[in-house]
Amino acid sequence: MAETAPTALLLSIGSELLLGETVDTNAAYLGQELARLGMELRAVQQLPDDRKVIADAFLEALAGGDVVFATGGLGPTHDDLTREGLADALGEELVEDRELAEGLRARFGGAGRMPVSNLHQARLIPSAQPLDNPVGSAPGWWVERNGRAVVLMPGVPAEMHRMWREQVVPRLERRLRLFPLAMRTVKTFGLGESAAAERLGDLLEVPGEGIEAGIYARDDGVHLRFSTRAGAARLEEPMARALAILGDDVYGTDEQTLPGVAMAALRRAGVHTLVTIESGTDGALLAILAAHEPAEGEARYLGGSLVQEGPEPGEIPAEAILTVRLGAQAALGRSRVTVSLAAPGIGFEGREVRIHGSGAQRLRRGAFAALDLVRRECRADEQEGRA
Amino acid sequence: MAETAPTALLLSIGSELLLGETVDTNAAYLGQELARLGMELRAVQQLPDDRKVIADAFLEALAGGDVVFATGGLGPTHDDLTREGLADALGEELVEDRELAEGLRARFGGAGRMPVSNLHQARLIPSAQPLDNPVGSAPGWWVERNGRAVVLMPGVPAEMHRMWREQVVPRLERRLRLFPLAMRTVKTFGLGESAAAERLGDLLEVPGEGIEAGIYARDDGVHLRFSTRAGAARLEEPMARALAILGDDVYGTDEQTLPGVAMAALRRAGVHTLVTIESGTDGALLAILAAHEPAEGEARYLGGSLVQEGPEPGEIPAEAILTVRLGAQAALGRSRVTVSLAAPGIGFEGREVRIHGSGAQRLRRGAFAALDLVRRECRADEQEGRA
Repeated sequence: MAETAPTALLLSIGSELLLGETVDTNAAYLGQELARLGMELRAVQQLPDDRKVIADAFLEALAGGDVVFATGGLGPTHDDLTREGLADALGEELVEDRELAEGLRARFGGAGRMPVSNLHQARLIPSAQPLDNPVGSAPGWWVERNGRAVVLMPGVPAEMHRMWREQVVPRLERRLRLFPLAMRTVKTFGLGESAAAERLGDLLEVPGEGIEAGIYARDDGVHLRFSTRAGAARLEEPMARALAILGDDVYGTDEQTLPGVAMAALRRAGVHTLVTIESGTDGALLAILAAHEPAEGEARYLGGSLVQEGPEPGEIPAEAILTVRLGAQAALGRSRVTVSLAAPGIGFEGREVRIHGSGAQRLRRGAFAALDLVRRECRADEQEGRA
Repeated sequence: MAETAPTALLLSIGSELLLGETVDTNAAYLGQELARLGMELRAVQQLPDDRKVIADAFLEALAGGDVVFATGGLGPTHDDLTREGLADALGEELVEDRELAEGLRARFGGAGRMPVSNLHQARLIPSAQPLDNPVGSAPGWWVERNGRAVVLMPGVPAEMHRMWREQVVPRLERRLRLFPLAMRTVKTFGLGESAAAERLGDLLEVPGEGIEAGIYARDDGVHLRFSTRAGAARLEEPMARALAILGDDVYGTDEQTLPGVAMAALRRAGVHTLVTIESGTDGALLAILAAHEPAEGEARYLGGSLVQEGPEPGEIPAEAILTVRLGAQAALGRSRVTVSLAAPGIGFEGREVRIHGSGAQRLRRGAFAALDLVRRECRADEQEGRA
């Protein structure tokens, strides 16, 4: 089926990309999205704000893929030339669209308040349909020509993402025969990448017909991912096998996160509130827990402290205190993490684990190691309670 | 002089880039480096691990720029095809290089220990010189052909950065006539982008012959940047004018940072140690101060706390306590930050500032606003002392 995947090319337009002032995260976003939709992204190009260069690139890209996407260069100023470049490539003229111009004026709260330059954004070529941009002034374009499509989207990520989801994806789904990618993930902590691969053996090499398996080392552990374009049901059997093989080292699947799993385990153990004290981590644990979106059935995070020296908990207004001390980095990128949990019934003291890595990764891994210990402890406790 | 800048093209090779699994930060790094060196990066392309696609791209790129750079695809496995692609493009054969092979075996601690696949990395074409990679197994390549050069570097950023600095830049400087870019930056906090532009007026529009001026809104304030290819001395006059115009809103220049400036101001005010208490920021202040590399002449950061509710400092083992409360986001992305500093002589209580932004930016801006208030207070104090 991969042979029949519609093909795409992406042009990322903006001189700031070539000067390295902006990292092209749009390309990575669209790369993931297209892979999921079942389109093959053949190449990405970053191009300067140069009308001739942009026109040539559109002409060449139109010969190379079913859909050409472009982001950037739709702003109101004279160096926003994506519209002009595409018009040149297609041999069409830009004409002000009355409806778009009205919409823009309304957006600015009246004709008098809109900078004249914004009228550029109301110009269209005859074969272009405008794509609504509810969070910015630049409309996108959808253009069809000889069975191929060109899609222009703004370069501002928030505007592009919304236009992509609401305007572009539905049109692609209507016009193309797509085989979306189904994905399932098993998440582990405490296992190295090669140790996980060894345990999985055949399941990693031959996960099943039309199924691909990949293994990825992340700060929050080693993830095993199955994917297929033959329907999500195909993935149930390899998922079940992976869960059985990896056992206790699995902390969750798919959207589950280590902080979420640990906070839910604490809550099940009867803990309602948690604070943290950490040293040596530059506040990595606090950052992870503060950024975690709390869900129902989880213990509540009340906050935490970073201290320069070894932590000494005093009077803390929470039911549980999780204490983490990350040692200095030893040879070969190894560090030692010492974790204690003071909590009614399920506490533990001075448990040690080793982690690998350096720099910011080391700090985050130290914090995740603490959360993994909490999860394991609560789980052991639950199993004992059941036995 | 810009007309005579040598031109470059960049190929970023690796299917993971097109699947969006990796963001191409190498392209941004090289974009900045080339701009600084005085080379014009004409375009960047992300390409899959496909020998034919890579070969075609090299052929096309060789016609379009003085130097073609490529990163990635130099690993040991069968899908690392950059060497093969370039060999095809140039019509040359890959031959194992005895010296490179020896070096690789030594790296692995003996012939028996090296995976056979790593021998791929010892292969060269006759017109390639190897570039040393002291931190990885993939050597780079330097190839000259008809007055143009092709440079292959590894995709792992740490390996690429080091090879770039130590091997590639010196060769470029020897072979090309370059006009490196000199840059100076003035950093402000508390001023909006357009307010800063208005105050600067002419200095921003016509900063001087051969000088460009740009203004950038960052989490740590609005930065004004002057650049020129006509020698760094040219920038002294516009820098002096900018500093005079922007006055107290300036917290530093060039490599100076807001945490560094604030901690140095505290130290000058006689404060040796600081802790922080914050709420509403998800620990952004703590993260900024913990990541700040302390320098001599700065107060020492002992750690901090994130609390869920408004902070109530208790017994704290530091000379000064900086307390920050970031309010919820109000309409139009405005938030209110309340900052107090408990410190001998220079304290203040419940000072309020407004910040703009949403999401993680809002949190970081709230934290930076607190540091800016500390800087301003210490400065006012110093000036009073002097008066």
